Amino acid sequence: MDSSLKRLYDPSTIAVVGPSPNRQNLATIILDNLIRAADDGSLKAKVYAVNPLYDECLGLKCRRVLDSGTDLVIIAVPSRLAVDYLTMAQDSGAGTAIVISGGFSESGGKSLRPMIHGIRVLGPNTIGIVDTSSGINTLFLPRFKKASDGTELRSIPDPKKGNVSIIAQSGGISVSLYDELLSSGMGIRALTCLGNSDDIDAAEVIEYFADDSLTDLIALYLEGVNDGRKLMNSVSRASSKKRVIAMIAGISDAGKRATSSHTGSIVKNSDVYFAAIKQAGALAVNDYRDFIALIKSYQMLGEVKGRGVAILTNSGGAGVLAADEAMTRGMSVPPLHDRLISLKENGTLPSIASVENPVDVSASGDDKSIVSVYRSLLDFDDIDSIVIISTHYPPGVTDSLPSAIASLRKEHMKPTVAVELGKSQWSYKIRDLYDANGLPSVDSPQQASHILALLYSMSKAKPTWHPVSETNVATIYPGTHIEPEISEFLTQFGFKSPKWRWIDEESDLDKIEYPISLKVFSDRLVHKTEAGAVKVDIKDRNDAIFAYRQFRERFGGERVYAQEMVRGVEVRVGILSDDTFGKYVDIGIGGTLTELLKDHSTRVAPVDINEVIEMLGELRAAQLLMGYRGRESADVRSLAKSISALSIWAASYNKLMEIEINPLIVNATGSYAVDVRATVEF
Amino acid sequence: MDSSLKRLYDPSTIAVVGPSPNRQNLATIILDNLIRAADDGSLKAKVYAVNPLYDECLGLKCRRVLDSGTDLVIIAVPSRLAVDYLTMAQDSGAGTAIVISGGFSESGGKSLRPMIHGIRVLGPNTIGIVDTSSGINTLFLPRFKKASDGTELRSIPDPKKGNVSIIAQSGGISVSLYDELLSSGMGIRALTCLGNSDDIDAAEVIEYFADDSLTDLIALYLEGVNDGRKLMNSVSRASSKKRVIAMIAGISDAGKRATSSHTGSIVKNSDVYFAAIKQAGALAVNDYRDFIALIKSYQMLGEVKGRGVAILTNSGGAGVLAADEAMTRGMSVPPLHDRLISLKENGTLPSIASVENPVDVSASGDDKSIVSVYRSLLDFDDIDSIVIISTHYPPGVTDSLPSAIASLRKEHMKPTVAVELGKSQWSYKIRDLYDANGLPSVDSPQQASHILALLYSMSKAKPTWHPVSETNVATIYPGTHIEPEISEFLTQFGFKSPKWRWIDEESDLDKIEYPISLKVFSDRLVHKTEAGAVKVDIKDRNDAIFAYRQFRERFGGERVYAQEMVRGVEVRVGILSDDTFGKYVDIGIGGTLTELLKDHSTRVAPVDINEVIEMLGELRAAQLLMGYRGRESADVRSLAKSISALSIWAASYNKLMEIEINPLIVNATGSYAVDVRATVEF
Repeated sequence: MDSSLKRLYDPSTIAVVGPSPNRQNLATIILDNLIRAADDGSLKAKVYAVNPLYDECLGLKCRRVLDSGTDLVIIAVPSRLAVDYLTMAQDSGAGTAIVISGGFSESGGKSLRPMIHGIRVLGPNTIGIVDTSSGINTLFLPRFKKASDGTELRSIPDPKKGNVSIIAQSGGISVSLYDELLSSGMGIRALTCLGNSDDIDAAEVIEYFADDSLTDLIALYLEGVNDGRKLMNSVSRASSKKRVIAMIAGISDAGKRATSSHTGSIVKNSDVYFAAIKQAGALAVNDYRDFIALIKSYQMLGEVKGRGVAILTNSGGAGVLAADEAMTRGMSVPPLHDRLISLKENGTLPSIASVENPVDVSASGDDKSIVSVYRSLLDFDDIDSIVIISTHYPPGVTDSLPSAIASLRKEHMKPTVAVELGKSQWSYKIRDLYDANGLPSVDSPQQASHILALLYSMSKAKPTWHPVSETNVATIYPGTHIEPEISEFLTQFGFKSPKWRWIDEESDLDKIEYPISLKVFSDRLVHKTEAGAVKVDIKDRNDAIFAYRQFRERFGGERVYAQEMVRGVEVRVGILSDDTFGKYVDIGIGGTLTELLKDHSTRVAPVDINEVIEMLGELRAAQLLMGYRGRESADVRSLAKSISALSIWAASYNKLMEIEINPLIVNATGSYAVDVRATVEF
Repeated sequence: MDSSLKRLYDPSTIAVVGPSPNRQNLATIILDNLIRAADDGSLKAKVYAVNPLYDECLGLKCRRVLDSGTDLVIIAVPSRLAVDYLTMAQDSGAGTAIVISGGFSESGGKSLRPMIHGIRVLGPNTIGIVDTSSGINTLFLPRFKKASDGTELRSIPDPKKGNVSIIAQSGGISVSLYDELLSSGMGIRALTCLGNSDDIDAAEVIEYFADDSLTDLIALYLEGVNDGRKLMNSVSRASSKKRVIAMIAGISDAGKRATSSHTGSIVKNSDVYFAAIKQAGALAVNDYRDFIALIKSYQMLGEVKGRGVAILTNSGGAGVLAADEAMTRGMSVPPLHDRLISLKENGTLPSIASVENPVDVSASGDDKSIVSVYRSLLDFDDIDSIVIISTHYPPGVTDSLPSAIASLRKEHMKPTVAVELGKSQWSYKIRDLYDANGLPSVDSPQQASHILALLYSMSKAKPTWHPVSETNVATIYPGTHIEPEISEFLTQFGFKSPKWRWIDEESDLDKIEYPISLKVFSDRLVHKTEAGAVKVDIKDRNDAIFAYRQFRERFGGERVYAQEMVRGVEVRVGILSDDTFGKYVDIGIGGTLTELLKDHSTRVAPVDINEVIEMLGELRAAQLLMGYRGRESADVRSLAKSISALSIWAASYNKLMEIEINPLIVNATGSYAVDVRATVEF
């Protein structure tokens, strides 16, 4: 464990700098909160105040200077003063500082980075941290606020212990996640708002909580990082011990590198982010409400171990919505009729109940019928999780149901999400009762199924990321390389180079086997086909001479070569560089059309053989490789092996800017690099 | 207007049959509700009770029999008795009946249809109707329910007048939509639960509210209908006068017709439903929470007229989520910096505010800064709608903000959705205040943008559906037809037939122009290519003879023909029949690969030229037709004209079971029906 971050989250001494007699002053509010926490025993650290302008603040003596070696200095003053205080902290040998102050690089100002030496800094532009174990809490937002009618209403909840560590870049999202979870009765292990990350970044905080025995789940909200591979390494380490979920937002293609490759036009920056998160073993979530519901549900339920979902409802329509969604999300809805029909026959369920899946006890069903079906479902091995939709409207449903269901679930530990519809007082009451009894409640049948599918995906997420740094990398000359020469180079990775020969005069066309492609050799033609510099599938010498003469006319002195025609499935393999994550691999199948259809799969490089096989499986056109419509199946394993080897080389060879094989023609005899373009930095 | 439904929704006399002294009896509950409504003047109809077993119920005299010509008879008794009462109602000349009772076809019992004559029946298996104009309300669910601590809590809200008419098949969904809207302070025009639709169906009810002057929006929840074209006709008529939104659920492919065509394997039953809804001018919504939020937002805001969205926030992270979602949903987020920078320069906004779009006033911003930006946004012509995210956490945000924003909006009528995050007391208070002031509030930045995008789509939705029934339809013989003969038939629609001739002996191969395709003529080979019965791109006589001999060996006595090779973009056009909607058209581009990638567009037939052009535009591979990568652009208009003509023929020709042209090769000179298969019923 990084001891410098221990001084941040679990300090023995805390200095708050800049508090004043003004109660609205941020530093004063933070000091006030910390003093109260120290007084009630929840904060163990010793807290003191520093302000050379005042003798006293909140009854505490204000010191002129910082003690030597303070663990944590909290700086919540205007940006110019913040710099002075940070210097003072550094000079006094303080361990860590939280710079709450905004007005730095986030709003066109300066980064603190150049001035940070020795001390470790969280921020600037952060609301700081909450650590429910050490008791530190720097949230300076009002806990209560007065409404215009004079009533005091809760604005943010108080901390409570739990097992999720939230790490978020945005202050607003940090505090709203905190509010959502704590106000629902959940606890958290810690909350960290990263702010501008001028020193301590997401990766370091993730590493810290990866080693934290009180954390089970790490929830990340990221809007971009500087060092993508550092992030991947830390998330990989964390996800081998804990569960990690991540929400990624605001990743635009605005700053994307210009490239002439097809790969570059297909892959979005966010594709690379999502690939990185997945490779590092975290589960990516796209929707803010799903993100919150997933954190809450994981804390209450843990993971879902299999795809089988039973839907138990007293509203047929709501059951249909849940079942549709479960199937859309890749879950299965096993038949239940034969196992539940006895409940209907023996009168436990109303005669108008349906015992398919969804099981619909109907509006005539009551607590007892719902509980009896639920109890049966707990015993079925093919039912891995349950959606229970017990709308409160029918007279027979009471507020005793949530605790009855919850206590059965606790015995059997079968993950269950409860759906209660509506906005009436009963709707809120029933949802609150489910939550309070440890069953997550939602207000949409579709969300319930989606959450269970996410909890199932979580159980399957695992890190597959292994960075490599080969020391003996095969190099090629700077500049642009095209086939046929570069194809020969690629044979070391297992690709095949189609047979070829230079055609310098027409008589050379007598010496070859047909069919062939005839191509102009020129690295200035980026899109050879569109430029008319390629003529494929030439069946005989006559056609070849015709094409050769055309080339001579149009492309003058450029050399021309003939290439063996290879038949098979067209694959595109591109390796490019992303500003955040460095080299990434992208694979597509089928040439022009899949490019239009954006059927592709992305990963940060390097990738191992299994990862390539998984990538191929993600392509909707993957069936083409498996011998679609009676064609011969391709040698997928050897294809994967070659792409993996290429990716290891490309990832290790920094001067390689990009390489694209398009098409790579794949058949049962191998993978032929028919068209290649590689660029190496000068 | 259908006067028989007027007697249902606006009756002068209502009879409730089967009430008893038992207060839990459904008929008694309904009678009780109606009497109270009549007493307080909200219900104008005269209400009476019928039960031969009792003299009195709820202080009302029970009659033995029904009066002659009662407008509406409400039947809420066990199913066997329901049949008796329905017969009695019919015999007494009653106008309409609502059969609340379940236990009919929905749970394996009988349909009421065969016994309904003269009388019009809603149900069975329905919770009935609420009409806030006539005051009728048959909801028999408890308005209040006692919790286990003895407190009485609201279970469903009371009716309130509004402009949305809800029509739903499911009782549970009906009541939860009712609860969601009414408990949020919204009103409704009417609620209709269709139940089993043994007589009155969705189409009829839609027609009724299409003509209703108090209805602005019709919201449909459907799980399937019997007569798809009747539904389309009624929705088309409704959507030419009102807005219609529809949520479709539970449409599985279980009962789908078997077909050997590619089209049949690509198109799902739900695709045809969604196409039908769109052609009829309604907006389809997939998510239950979005459906509710959209109803609420449309009532408060009306439509959104353009794509430009401004996002005004005091939380940068939440602003990013809203902006991401707006762009994902096809909206635009115009730059605002130059127009708002003065607000920062003159000190209205904090120095750390950002005046891009999102505009982030930061946590230092207060009511005043938010209101001043909002006021500016109202004047910008390229801003068609606004997301306002005013999280309550910062000290400067008060509960006066919602009404300040709402009154500005009312002056300028610019659609605005308010986002308030969290679950603390302030979160609920602020959301309630926005709702109460006429600005829809949501608890997710993403949902706000999505709702605005849906309101924009609503403004673009319009009916394009025109059923045809040609009287003089060109017919073909029963059985299966394949090219080349059927291709000649298709020329009447504007398709071209590739040149061809029979090859009955090898010498016939001397008489043709190369390149050609050589094909075996056999309607028993459904997938000719896979069977090896097609050889394309034969360049000369030698290759042709080789292929011809192979065919002779493998396919014995079948005739063989040569077909001109046509170059161009491969298109697939299929017209098949769906059990609910009848003939539908499906178009794809690119052969095998788009089939794997499911890049296709579906419509109920017939389609006019503009509809075909829209269908082509929906294909991700559409660029291929427009001359992708330097190829010549196809004659899209003539293609669309031919497909439209084909669809009119197919839709009018009942005996045609299916026709598929695959490929239809399209180039600048026309659309060539290279491979065709049509089946006509015997």
